[in-house]
Amino acid sequence: MNEMIEIGARSKEAQRILSRAGSAVIDKALRSAADALENNTEYILEENSKDIRAASASGMAEAMIDRLTLSGDRISSMASGLRHVAESESPLGRVLSGETRPNGLRIEKITVPIGVIAVIFEARPNVTADAAAICLKAGNSVILKGGKEAVNSNKAIASVMREAIAQAGLPEDCIILVENISRQAATDLMRLNGYVDLLIPRGGAGLIRSVVENATVPVIETGVGNCHVYIDAAADIDMAADIVVNAKASRVSVCNACESLLVHKDIAELALLAVGERLKEKGVEIMGDEAVCEILPYAKPASPEDWAKEYLDYKISVKVVESIDEAIEHIAKYGTGHSEAIVTDSYAAAEQFKAQVDAAAVYVNASTRFTDGGEFGFGAEIGISTQKLHARGPLGVAHMVSSKYVISGNGQIR
Amino acid sequence: MNEMIEIGARSKEAQRILSRAGSAVIDKALRSAADALENNTEYILEENSKDIRAASASGMAEAMIDRLTLSGDRISSMASGLRHVAESESPLGRVLSGETRPNGLRIEKITVPIGVIAVIFEARPNVTADAAAICLKAGNSVILKGGKEAVNSNKAIASVMREAIAQAGLPEDCIILVENISRQAATDLMRLNGYVDLLIPRGGAGLIRSVVENATVPVIETGVGNCHVYIDAAADIDMAADIVVNAKASRVSVCNACESLLVHKDIAELALLAVGERLKEKGVEIMGDEAVCEILPYAKPASPEDWAKEYLDYKISVKVVESIDEAIEHIAKYGTGHSEAIVTDSYAAAEQFKAQVDAAAVYVNASTRFTDGGEFGFGAEIGISTQKLHARGPLGVAHMVSSKYVISGNGQIR
Repeated sequence: MNEMIEIGARSKEAQRILSRAGSAVIDKALRSAADALENNTEYILEENSKDIRAASASGMAEAMIDRLTLSGDRISSMASGLRHVAESESPLGRVLSGETRPNGLRIEKITVPIGVIAVIFEARPNVTADAAAICLKAGNSVILKGGKEAVNSNKAIASVMREAIAQAGLPEDCIILVENISRQAATDLMRLNGYVDLLIPRGGAGLIRSVVENATVPVIETGVGNCHVYIDAAADIDMAADIVVNAKASRVSVCNACESLLVHKDIAELALLAVGERLKEKGVEIMGDEAVCEILPYAKPASPEDWAKEYLDYKISVKVVESIDEAIEHIAKYGTGHSEAIVTDSYAAAEQFKAQVDAAAVYVNASTRFTDGGEFGFGAEIGISTQKLHARGPLGVAHMVSSKYVISGNGQIR
Repeated sequence: MNEMIEIGARSKEAQRILSRAGSAVIDKALRSAADALENNTEYILEENSKDIRAASASGMAEAMIDRLTLSGDRISSMASGLRHVAESESPLGRVLSGETRPNGLRIEKITVPIGVIAVIFEARPNVTADAAAICLKAGNSVILKGGKEAVNSNKAIASVMREAIAQAGLPEDCIILVENISRQAATDLMRLNGYVDLLIPRGGAGLIRSVVENATVPVIETGVGNCHVYIDAAADIDMAADIVVNAKASRVSVCNACESLLVHKDIAELALLAVGERLKEKGVEIMGDEAVCEILPYAKPASPEDWAKEYLDYKISVKVVESIDEAIEHIAKYGTGHSEAIVTDSYAAAEQFKAQVDAAAVYVNASTRFTDGGEFGFGAEIGISTQKLHARGPLGVAHMVSSKYVISGNGQIR
């Protein structure tokens, strides 16, 4: 714990200086970090290759090794991400509201940094650069704790960025990478009250569960997406098929991918024949209820557990429902509050779905895959919040702020 | 745990119905609850007298018994609080932002209820009515857990309100009082993930610590206020004395009361003589540093612990500082992020204090006692948030909402 308190104290002190630096200095630091990443490509790739060798030796799956692997292009794309954040508007010092009270007190609500943000993440080393940039832009210092598989890559990226921001005039401790990769260090970080103002876990369901269970600092829960597409009785079948195939199969490993399909009974046969064929072409396995299995001979029977599963794979659960009400209830029961879509040409059905489905993003006639900071126009994102506190949906720079009330008087007492 | 899960499930189900009710029905239910409280004054006072008798028998302090005691007037004032909430604008269904993306997707961000809000509170039975009204108005169901001293009063108020809202067409389970007063029940409530979307503790430092330590559901931390007034070198001494006396002594038991006074050395003697005399008249005990004790013979020497204390009493710590920088650093070290004030006529000092002090409310030339939902124009409040996530400062109806993105397309895929 002492080690982590020392890191917390350094981060907090750096943030105090950062909060007074002004956005021109912050932007300069981000551009300087972008240049430094590109200028140190060779060094970073060398450190990255140590991680890759270790991963291969330990028998890590190819897909995981691919996520871990950096290249000149990937480093350039990290750098251009930083430049993009530098060019975006500062979210700080905005007056959100203001009024003069009857007693003459002037009350203004102004955006300020959150303070110290901790990010615990897995695998991909590019998160080191992305998360640091998003936090810094909003005046926050960041404590990063990456997965042990990427420890050398993360260290290299963090040390290059630390040096670069220091040259631009910011304390290098605005970015601290926790080099202790033990579980205990992660738990200590989750309980660093008084130092950490916000903790964001970025990773799989296991990491998020561990954070929710152990953290005593404020948390924004991200990520798990059991997303549904509901094909309503009044749907255009071609549009429905395009949306389902895109939502399921354009990229199966992401949280905004569709995991479950609901189809209204009145359109079930036609819709399932059309959609099923196209999913089959993409190699998607269908886990269906009884009605689905009757229509699609190649579907396998779904078990009750299938309705709650986030497959992150070429697999989808499919169910025929009696009504839109049943679809909405099913989503309320099994959804994770991430992204939910209806395909329909009925005004009444669209309105009902929008009003009654409780999720970060509710779609009419579009793919769930759009739930993404870039697609929403937020620029870089640090994750997708599935909780209802503070921010819901894609978390961009604009969400990494708090506010304070500034009250100007001339001697008012109560 | 099973008992609490059953309560959570009932609350969640009630909230689904509540979320579709519309604000006219909610307002009707709140007015009906207000009438019912007044019409059942006799019954509520009878139940309250049981609590008072038990408290007297157990030797509870007079001040605590006073907080526990209801009267016809206090019940009327609870009822008028409910009517006030009913008359206020609904915070639901507001479009916070909206834009059309290049691909034609229309993205709107709309306010929605948070869901199920749990409130754990101590002593005052009027919180039952206030908290329920604020949560309901924003479309949230509420699970209330009050202190054991007020159990009969809380039961009476909750049952009267439940019946009244049911008559107005809302499920009575929109308001559930946890009647099990054990600590285990409180802990279970703090860990009711999947049912409770937000937990607000309302009470002393011990309750808040226990919630931060034990809760796995999202929490808004409220309350603890080690608030400072800093008298700058350029202060008007009469104004400073008025503000300090008001901030310290107008009501000592509240979280926005001043607990610590900082005085610039250049004005220390004059300011302390003026302020000290007026505090003494009010019966306020002064715990001073060495410089203070030299100027004020009736001051007692402060121990290092005094700087961190929230006295909630006729007591104040007082320190002479070398500069505004030292004052701001002292506040950063010992403040709890609640309310901080500077008294000054210097533009530069005022600007520096506003920019560099990190707290929910930062005052120039006004008393810290204004940090209050009513004084800020929010109407009723459910507490003062001292955390940086979601909402900071007084929590009114407007803060008891989340948002969702509603995306309208015509077949967009990615």
